[in-house]
Amino acid sequence: MPILHQMQMSGNCYKVRLTARRLGLALTLKDYGLHDGSTRTPEFLKLNPNGRVPLLEFEDGRLLPESGAILFHLSDGTALQPDNAWDRAQMLQWMFFEQYSHEPYIAVARYWLHFAKPEELEKKRPLVPEWHAKGKAALGVMETHLKLHDWFAGKSCSIADIALYAYTHSAAEGGFNLADFPAVSAWLGRVASQPGHIPLELHW
Amino acid sequence: MPILHQMQMSGNCYKVRLTARRLGLALTLKDYGLHDGSTRTPEFLKLNPNGRVPLLEFEDGRLLPESGAILFHLSDGTALQPDNAWDRAQMLQWMFFEQYSHEPYIAVARYWLHFAKPEELEKKRPLVPEWHAKGKAALGVMETHLKLHDWFAGKSCSIADIALYAYTHSAAEGGFNLADFPAVSAWLGRVASQPGHIPLELHW
Repeated sequence: MPILHQMQMSGNCYKVRLTARRLGLALTLKDYGLHDGSTRTPEFLKLNPNGRVPLLEFEDGRLLPESGAILFHLSDGTALQPDNAWDRAQMLQWMFFEQYSHEPYIAVARYWLHFAKPEELEKKRPLVPEWHAKGKAALGVMETHLKLHDWFAGKSCSIADIALYAYTHSAAEGGFNLADFPAVSAWLGRVASQPGHIPLELHW
Repeated sequence: MPILHQMQMSGNCYKVRLTARRLGLALTLKDYGLHDGSTRTPEFLKLNPNGRVPLLEFEDGRLLPESGAILFHLSDGTALQPDNAWDRAQMLQWMFFEQYSHEPYIAVARYWLHFAKPEELEKKRPLVPEWHAKGKAALGVMETHLKLHDWFAGKSCSIADIALYAYTHSAAEGGFNLADFPAVSAWLGRVASQPGHIPLELHW
């Protein structure tokens, strides 16, 4: 069984657990701590020189970091990807949007405001207004799309929706008010009602 | 002919021009200024609500933002992508790495230190040491890979190499010293010697 090197509260790791569950794939979870530097040890850096989770380790030793690449690989040829090239391009568009324009503000605000030690947060406090402004801008881009479409790419829930769901559904922990984004809120409900959906907290 | 909405000096836009040239695809370039807010006008936001270039506009009106998605779509089924699923997953891994762990430090340092107005740079000056530390870390991850491999995914130059080339080859403009990364420097030479290669400055 593949091993998912992960942190339970990381949205990037949740994306992989959620995708695996939606596809009926079993994974062994190997947990790392949020504050203990365990992804920066020499031992871990041999597995991923970039020192990050999620990292997926296959039975034969092959290693794949980066949540977007893991989601793409696990779901290749399944119903979690659209079956035509143009819709797949749009799926990837939203996955790159998430990692560049959404996660660095919405996930980062959640980490510092919800999980970091108070004395560490104080050093980052001057950056909070920028995180909130750029995170709201990203939610606004999603709202514009979701006013006209049920899903981010193609005609059903894809890995683009899973990638965007992870940190959007937990955005309140970073100080964002999702009530300001009604189309986003309705879409969150659609994603959560898909068969096989699991909450972020579930460990297995 | 598709229209590439672009800024000439943007590495993300250069990636698209370089991919198109490598594939023999013709594009019409529509240029936007670096400091004139022209990607934030109501007219442009109708094309891309995220207010960014590159944005590829096809003859039939379809619109695709995000350099990674554009590269993937243009090169789908060509020699610029590996022909097996595992190598394609690694290609995407490096493209997500570039957008998350490389571009936000190496491209951002280049923008502020090389292109921004001096009075704007002063506001960002306290962030420069973090950009340099994290950018060097990203170059170190590339160096580790390139000591053992000629290319980032598969057995030849792919869009992962093009994606990483754009801001790596111009990193000196952000204050990075590529002489510290000999395997990266050798790989830059391999990319630049591929048939169809064009420099960032070339407008067509």
